[in-house]
Amino acid sequence: MIAARLHAYHEPLRVESVHEPEISGPMDVIVRIGAAGLCRTDLHIQEGQWAERSRVALPYTLGHENAGWVHEIGAGVTNVAVGDTVIVHPLVTCGLCRACRTGDDMHCAQGSFPGINRDGGFAELLLTSARSVVRVDPSLAPSQIAALADAGLTAIHAVKRAIPVLGAGARAVVIGAGGLGHIAIQCLRAYTPATVIVVDPSEPALALASELGADHAVRVDGDHVRAVLELTDGHGAEAIIDFVGEGGAVADGIAMLRDGGFYYVVGYGGRIEIPTIDVISREISFIGNLVGTHAELEELMTLTAQGKVTLHTRTYPLAAVNDAIADLAAGRLQGRGILVPG
Amino acid sequence: MIAARLHAYHEPLRVESVHEPEISGPMDVIVRIGAAGLCRTDLHIQEGQWAERSRVALPYTLGHENAGWVHEIGAGVTNVAVGDTVIVHPLVTCGLCRACRTGDDMHCAQGSFPGINRDGGFAELLLTSARSVVRVDPSLAPSQIAALADAGLTAIHAVKRAIPVLGAGARAVVIGAGGLGHIAIQCLRAYTPATVIVVDPSEPALALASELGADHAVRVDGDHVRAVLELTDGHGAEAIIDFVGEGGAVADGIAMLRDGGFYYVVGYGGRIEIPTIDVISREISFIGNLVGTHAELEELMTLTAQGKVTLHTRTYPLAAVNDAIADLAAGRLQGRGILVPG
Amino acid sequence: MIAARLHAYHEPLRVESVHEPEISGPMDVIVRIGAAGLCRTDLHIQEGQWAERSRVALPYTLGHENAGWVHEIGAGVTNVAVGDTVIVHPLVTCGLCRACRTGDDMHCAQGSFPGINRDGGFAELLLTSARSVVRVDPSLAPSQIAALADAGLTAIHAVKRAIPVLGAGARAVVIGAGGLGHIAIQCLRAYTPATVIVVDPSEPALALASELGADHAVRVDGDHVRAVLELTDGHGAEAIIDFVGEGGAVADGIAMLRDGGFYYVVGYGGRIEIPTIDVISREISFIGNLVGTHAELEELMTLTAQGKVTLHTRTYPLAAVNDAIADLAAGRLQGRGILVPG
Amino acid sequence: MIAARLHAYHEPLRVESVHEPEISGPMDVIVRIGAAGLCRTDLHIQEGQWAERSRVALPYTLGHENAGWVHEIGAGVTNVAVGDTVIVHPLVTCGLCRACRTGDDMHCAQGSFPGINRDGGFAELLLTSARSVVRVDPSLAPSQIAALADAGLTAIHAVKRAIPVLGAGARAVVIGAGGLGHIAIQCLRAYTPATVIVVDPSEPALALASELGADHAVRVDGDHVRAVLELTDGHGAEAIIDFVGEGGAVADGIAMLRDGGFYYVVGYGGRIEIPTIDVISREISFIGNLVGTHAELEELMTLTAQGKVTLHTRTYPLAAVNDAIADLAAGRLQGRGILVPG
Repeated sequence: MIAARLHAYHEPLRVESVHEPEISGPMDVIVRIGAAGLCRTDLHIQEGQWAERSRVALPYTLGHENAGWVHEIGAGVTNVAVGDTVIVHPLVTCGLCRACRTGDDMHCAQGSFPGINRDGGFAELLLTSARSVVRVDPSLAPSQIAALADAGLTAIHAVKRAIPVLGAGARAVVIGAGGLGHIAIQCLRAYTPATVIVVDPSEPALALASELGADHAVRVDGDHVRAVLELTDGHGAEAIIDFVGEGGAVADGIAMLRDGGFYYVVGYGGRIEIPTIDVISREISFIGNLVGTHAELEELMTLTAQGKVTLHTRTYPLAAVNDAIADLAAGRLQGRGILVPG
Repeated sequence: MIAARLHAYHEPLRVESVHEPEISGPMDVIVRIGAAGLCRTDLHIQEGQWAERSRVALPYTLGHENAGWVHEIGAGVTNVAVGDTVIVHPLVTCGLCRACRTGDDMHCAQGSFPGINRDGGFAELLLTSARSVVRVDPSLAPSQIAALADAGLTAIHAVKRAIPVLGAGARAVVIGAGGLGHIAIQCLRAYTPATVIVVDPSEPALALASELGADHAVRVDGDHVRAVLELTDGHGAEAIIDFVGEGGAVADGIAMLRDGGFYYVVGYGGRIEIPTIDVISREISFIGNLVGTHAELEELMTLTAQGKVTLHTRTYPLAAVNDAIADLAAGRLQGRGILVPG
Repeated sequence: MIAARLHAYHEPLRVESVHEPEISGPMDVIVRIGAAGLCRTDLHIQEGQWAERSRVALPYTLGHENAGWVHEIGAGVTNVAVGDTVIVHPLVTCGLCRACRTGDDMHCAQGSFPGINRDGGFAELLLTSARSVVRVDPSLAPSQIAALADAGLTAIHAVKRAIPVLGAGARAVVIGAGGLGHIAIQCLRAYTPATVIVVDPSEPALALASELGADHAVRVDGDHVRAVLELTDGHGAEAIIDFVGEGGAVADGIAMLRDGGFYYVVGYGGRIEIPTIDVISREISFIGNLVGTHAELEELMTLTAQGKVTLHTRTYPLAAVNDAIADLAAGRLQGRGILVPG
Repeated sequence: MIAARLHAYHEPLRVESVHEPEISGPMDVIVRIGAAGLCRTDLHIQEGQWAERSRVALPYTLGHENAGWVHEIGAGVTNVAVGDTVIVHPLVTCGLCRACRTGDDMHCAQGSFPGINRDGGFAELLLTSARSVVRVDPSLAPSQIAALADAGLTAIHAVKRAIPVLGAGARAVVIGAGGLGHIAIQCLRAYTPATVIVVDPSEPALALASELGADHAVRVDGDHVRAVLELTDGHGAEAIIDFVGEGGAVADGIAMLRDGGFYYVVGYGGRIEIPTIDVISREISFIGNLVGTHAELEELMTLTAQGKVTLHTRTYPLAAVNDAIADLAAGRLQGRGILVPG
């Protein structure tokens, strides 16, 4: 089959022919990929940011945001059948460790992460497991939903954790209205009555944010921190949800945060650098966020079916993966880029 | 009256005669100080770390951890009478803002902090308010309880926030078994079944920690991070409660933290410096902690009355305040230093 | 002044001339009533249901849902001035007991409840306290907002407690779309993505419910339990919010509740009667709800200002109070009845 | 093999020879029973209280509190091996439904309950599943731990839900110091600083309660409600944990509950009967409790290994099951009755 693989850091992916995955365990599931989302993490992998953390051996296939149809199943699989349309939770988990037993899929003691530390979905077929597939209505096209598997799942995860501080009158600042941010805005609308302030350098991204329900759209122009403070009585927002996490975003976000507030870290690439005296005298907190749980993925599918979350995407053929990456890196890609095999 | 005042940063306090405070509002309360605790924050104030944050005008009287007897009350005060023994919550709060109305005393919109941004309790008399005094049994000597007003209150506040992650089998690492840490150990024992691991450079401090119920005492000796990892199956602890926050403590603490875990920042002086990719890939969080609420102070008084929390202190006359400061700075002061006027 | 007073249980109120209230304490506030809501509790008081619980001495003035303008203030009052437009939190609280210090206004150790156990707002003037008044924009007419002070406050309180069980895909059944229920529907829309099912015997009430955002409107017609079960996959709803609490409502509600679910009791008059084996084998819970906190009243004012909550009311002159009571008792009153003095 | 089976309601169990269970699915596990606890639910089953709820066909084997050694495993089982010592979570769950995916084992959409609605562990062999077995240290004898599988698990589950209301100074009333209650007392000690008040008619049970850490032991003697009110400042306790749920226990418990408090229903046989006006005017809540989650069973095993929970048991041979039942029914059995095959 065809797959887009990383052979060396800092080089383009190679679209090439590779062996098909095979079923080896009773709970294995092979999904024929209908669509795979392109994530800024794919750029960060290419840049080598994950090399030390994932310890993956090159070459391997990227793609951790996948949807498609069940192609083959192991002997013990009962929850899906060949032909079912499915969205794929990004982790392959054991189901028996303490994290799995408490619904905290992301911290499975034996978890693996296709597209990060093993072969992912920039390919025609993906090997995953019964616990990772969610059957969806066959009327849904994989290209319509793939971006929910990671971008959407991460956004809803961060928003759900912020609910307790986002009552009526509270303010949530969303930094970055891209692939994740534009879903977060819709989740904030669905789960909270908070005022939503979106900060982004791009005018079209801000226009989309307003259309999706943001109360205020603030352009990153050097004066944006002051603008957010003015929108928050001079005190800052109860919650910052930062989908950028690099450049000046973190320092800006800390300056926009109210004393006693919570900073949800989602985007990455930069650093948190802050004196501990500011952390304690302002009593502010930083909450790390990885992609969400299986139950959150199901909630997100429900919101989508109810029309409360709508994805904004741009489709590329899998063979054009490096063009898509270039568009994302250059800020030319609004919404989420989606790769469709042959 | 006599008070110990800071006239210039980086200089010793001056013990000198000043005017007595006066009642001006109906809810004012003047407390005759029986004892005032000495806090590392007093050193940090002297070093100028708070100058920009508190914007206090020098000279002023330090001391934010106070107990004594009611000396005079305003016309509207009904909850205490002259002569009552009281412990003093460190903040003076309005009672009407949203923070006050939800029990979050520390974030009062009009709050002031005697000893930080106005005259404190290193003196014979302290001006505070009806909302800040808690009447205690007259059998309790102020010198026995003063350290609960800030050291104890901050410790219980951090411990209570960590309860949800500290079930049976979970591990809490307490960094620093000094004035705050030795109370935190006892609170962890009272509120959770977690395994308590204490990290400190001082052998006497570790001995006290073990006596107070710590399960493991780890000496800071260059090999302590590895020692904590061994005590936590190689994965680190679910909660780090850091009462140091400077030197290498923060970097060490992050290395001892389990993926998905929570780092409670209490001590300060240093910095949090961490790449956002580590925050999100490990899904770790940093929680800022200031002193606790009025309700937490009442819980702490109950624990003390029940014998579940015992203070370890060393008493100095107020006139020897600079000796006490020198002992604290040099690491010669175990437990909490207590200043007694007259 | 004129007031509507209860002289004997089971008799109409008497609209008569009484002495004006007077300021006696420094935190007292007298409000000139602009509007007072009529509540089913007023009927229940008249029926004697509260006699034993409130131990109030007759005659006294009813009316616990009040808004108006500040008429006179005690010497220590700083948060409002004469002439301010205010909504009145239904309890008069001390601000110093543990309940008050944790924001749990309803359980104040010294709390009193004008209109329940002392003179209320069916009058030209009401005596309350500084802690009970919330200043609102003078453009708001008291008749527009009075119903938020109790009907709205109770509805938002119950909804906020249900938030943790009302994620996407979960179902909330609102029993009763009257004075409280029609506000609860709007709060559910604002705070949760849950599917809202409204159950009521009145077609106009159901039409209003649908207009306000209910997903399903089910008529009480003997087949309504089955209808709700069909809307919930045969398993029942995660949350029942019962604004009726009498007649067959409780038994019906229990039959509509999913195993593991929560039943929020708000309306009253009937009984909960259930074998403990059903409570444990189904693991269901019953949550009592009184009116909400001061902070919840502020959230509700924000939602109203943002247009997320709209009141449906019908205005009567205070002198016609017994007509309004008759309309409410007979089910002829849709939305909330509002009494306006003079 | 030998099993103790119920052939008809209101009749003794028959100890008789039956076919051995067989592995049919890849995740099946057969456990050789080392010990099975006797529960008041076994009496309630015999009395027919569960007939309508479980819809089990008679005859069948009772016993839902089991420990032993792995005897045989299905082809897909990897978490235990033949010969391992195991304790058995009482439910057999699917692992894939929403409840399982969020750690809420008790509400598995496909769950079955050996000993309640299918053959249980009053036998030599028990058929369960890989998800239901927890491997324990081989030094532990099944008779030492079996009672943790249901009595202990239910007790810890109720206690953990009560933690948020049980700070220092709060009071927990434990009604019934028998099989479950004596474990609950120890869990309250481990997880909370609350004052523990135990109510029971039996002097030996109260003596055991005091030995295990109860602060107050109150004999049921007609004056016990008043005694509890005196121990709670006349206001009642923040939490009632009722392990009886029949006779006068519920009415007594409601009278001992503080306004705003929570009543945890665990024991059953009687009824909750209360006017809704009392539920709302007192704002009290009733929380149903079934046995706990898999993660809670692991916490309980940890507490036992740490010596924080100790079981009090009395052992009978399986053949004497009807004697054990008679002792339990007559109140002659202190701690938990344990049945040992062969």
